[in-house]
Amino acid sequence: MATIVQKFGGTSVGDVSRIKRAAERIKQAKEAGNRVVTVVSAMGKSTDALVKLAYDISESPDKREMDMLLSTGEQVTISLMVMALKELGINAVSLTGWQAGIKTEPVHQNARITGIDTERLESYLDDDKVVIVAGFQGMSESGEITTLGRGGSDTTAVALAAALKAESCTIFTDVTGVYTCDPRVAKHARQLQSISYDEMLELANLGAGVLHPRAVEFAKNYELPLIVRSSMVEAEGTIVEEEASMEQNLTVRGLAFEGAVTKITIERLPNRYHSMSDVFSALADSDIDVDIIIQQMTGENELNVSFSIHSHKLQEALQILETNSERLGYKQIRFEEGLAKVSIVGSGMISNPGVAANMFKALSDEEILIKMVSTSEIKVSTVVPEVDMVKAVETLHTAFDLDAVEEEVRDVEKVTS
Amino acid sequence: MATIVQKFGGTSVGDVSRIKRAAERIKQAKEAGNRVVTVVSAMGKSTDALVKLAYDISESPDKREMDMLLSTGEQVTISLMVMALKELGINAVSLTGWQAGIKTEPVHQNARITGIDTERLESYLDDDKVVIVAGFQGMSESGEITTLGRGGSDTTAVALAAALKAESCTIFTDVTGVYTCDPRVAKHARQLQSISYDEMLELANLGAGVLHPRAVEFAKNYELPLIVRSSMVEAEGTIVEEEASMEQNLTVRGLAFEGAVTKITIERLPNRYHSMSDVFSALADSDIDVDIIIQQMTGENELNVSFSIHSHKLQEALQILETNSERLGYKQIRFEEGLAKVSIVGSGMISNPGVAANMFKALSDEEILIKMVSTSEIKVSTVVPEVDMVKAVETLHTAFDLDAVEEEVRDVEKVTS
Repeated sequence: MATIVQKFGGTSVGDVSRIKRAAERIKQAKEAGNRVVTVVSAMGKSTDALVKLAYDISESPDKREMDMLLSTGEQVTISLMVMALKELGINAVSLTGWQAGIKTEPVHQNARITGIDTERLESYLDDDKVVIVAGFQGMSESGEITTLGRGGSDTTAVALAAALKAESCTIFTDVTGVYTCDPRVAKHARQLQSISYDEMLELANLGAGVLHPRAVEFAKNYELPLIVRSSMVEAEGTIVEEEASMEQNLTVRGLAFEGAVTKITIERLPNRYHSMSDVFSALADSDIDVDIIIQQMTGENELNVSFSIHSHKLQEALQILETNSERLGYKQIRFEEGLAKVSIVGSGMISNPGVAANMFKALSDEEILIKMVSTSEIKVSTVVPEVDMVKAVETLHTAFDLDAVEEEVRDVEKVTS
Repeated sequence: MATIVQKFGGTSVGDVSRIKRAAERIKQAKEAGNRVVTVVSAMGKSTDALVKLAYDISESPDKREMDMLLSTGEQVTISLMVMALKELGINAVSLTGWQAGIKTEPVHQNARITGIDTERLESYLDDDKVVIVAGFQGMSESGEITTLGRGGSDTTAVALAAALKAESCTIFTDVTGVYTCDPRVAKHARQLQSISYDEMLELANLGAGVLHPRAVEFAKNYELPLIVRSSMVEAEGTIVEEEASMEQNLTVRGLAFEGAVTKITIERLPNRYHSMSDVFSALADSDIDVDIIIQQMTGENELNVSFSIHSHKLQEALQILETNSERLGYKQIRFEEGLAKVSIVGSGMISNPGVAANMFKALSDEEILIKMVSTSEIKVSTVVPEVDMVKAVETLHTAFDLDAVEEEVRDVEKVTS
């Protein structure tokens, strides 16, 4: 009997009727003869309500206590989901993260899973029960409740699938699959039948938002097929696996973008061996995620360093640089807000030189200024003014032949409307 | 350094501002030089909201899953309370029931505490931290989340105080202490400085509602002083302890009452050894709480049995008796709704014969019909028409010299208004 793992995100369990609909889906999987483990997130906006309570009390709530608080959200969903399954005649049982044996680092709000003790879970599966597991949470060795950070429920699902040697892991979500680009922005976006782990990883890292990068990485390491499909409509979905079929031999498989990017430039930093390390260690120590980094010599003993961060971290980043100004020894800090990052992704790039050049040409033809560039083997990212973001996305989507044909567009509209 | 345990109920942590106020109280206790453990309930109406969700999904939600669901309520409060304390500069940490080592029977919705493993809790206290513990919940040996049923947070607090050999346990609530009678009904109700465990137990069992009987019993067994005081106003409170001071040498210390009582009479039951056992086992098997029982011979081989139950259980009780009518062999069932129970309580009764007679006289002087009577060493209960309940309470309050003097009445009004 095959073991399968499923995951339903916050929107898919957003209210009682959606929980009931998800329960129907779980029932189908069970009645198809599988051993079923389902991971669920907190109900829709319930996490926001808890976060608001915390911030009503404290401007900077304790991280340990935030984990204690927010982990209740999934615990509510697991119990309601089991009740819904029992109403459908399905024998089920709920487990919190710690009950499901999900062990993590002793870190709050962003812990990594270190292992899963599946004994309790497997004994329930052996009893022919569907097991509903709280996503996003685990327990450290000392018995502290931890959470996995953004996209944590995806990671829970994939990690469980790996630990249970599941056949596949299906992520039920509010879209029908992985698209060439966000269909709410690129009107001609097209759903992909399949995509490779690496491509998905670049798309996920770039904020495509369907799957969390940590989950994709986990799936890649365990060669676990990941399926993304809709919890709302019956449709095929997209499979993420090692060898994605080369649909239409596309060089570029997808396009990602995100706004609220700020570029910070440190001018005339002394050119010492540890200069770069000093700057970025100081930022990392305060959990400031730095994305693109560009270093440029400006004289024999001086350099300029530019990097991009999320705009809401700007004040914090400036303060850290200010605090360390003497030690770092730079002359000036400048920053530019109101930027966006637009990226193209595809394994086909490896064997196709000139993809980056084509991208720059397409953007310059539309008079879109490129502020920063960053490349990897299967990705080119550009930072552009946020006001030009949508235009850049549409331009590149067309330029790299990603636009859907007419009938596909109608399908997409049906689903997203 | 003395260890003290405190408990704040749902009303006292009902919103952010009340949580902050409770945090101030906790801070006072800590700064007075104590090791402080505080038990908290779920916020005000939050449990009701969770219960509603469950019943939106299922008419009879699974008990295990209800515990999973409802235990999140206290978990929310503990984290918020720690955040509030940290804002006041107090070092604190939260623990769920299972983290606090609260072990229970493997029963859902109404588990009893079987033991407390205080190691983790004490190590936090040794680190000079205030420990905030989720009330109402524990964990069975197999790692299931359980809840303690009604009044469970009181029980958690008292059990923790016993396990930690605390100096005292203070129950912060929305009244200023234990009264001779509910001040919302008896206008002359007076707050008691002290009361014995047994008296409190009778009052608690009789529905006085301030403290849960299981908590009082626990405190009595461990000779732990229990203090009931207001979380809202600075006032003395009432101490529950072994030797209550004999204030004004009162024979009757307090008065309790409850409405919605129904009397059921089984007529002409065969007088067999197992007749009584058959009747009340059948009711107990269906969780119908029977209160007063009166048995009366009506012939050589027949008897009448009357008993009182809560009115909302009437239909269920009648159905059980009907189902078992052949086996029980009675001739007829009669019932009377619209009754109330009014009781007087006081250790002084033991050495004062005639207290019951005085009670009956006071009631008959007001032409209040007595339908049933039940007595214990320190209590006399009467069942009377519910329409006469308030009159009976006021009459007895005056007859047994419980009325407060003028200035005390004003104090009470200030607090309850």
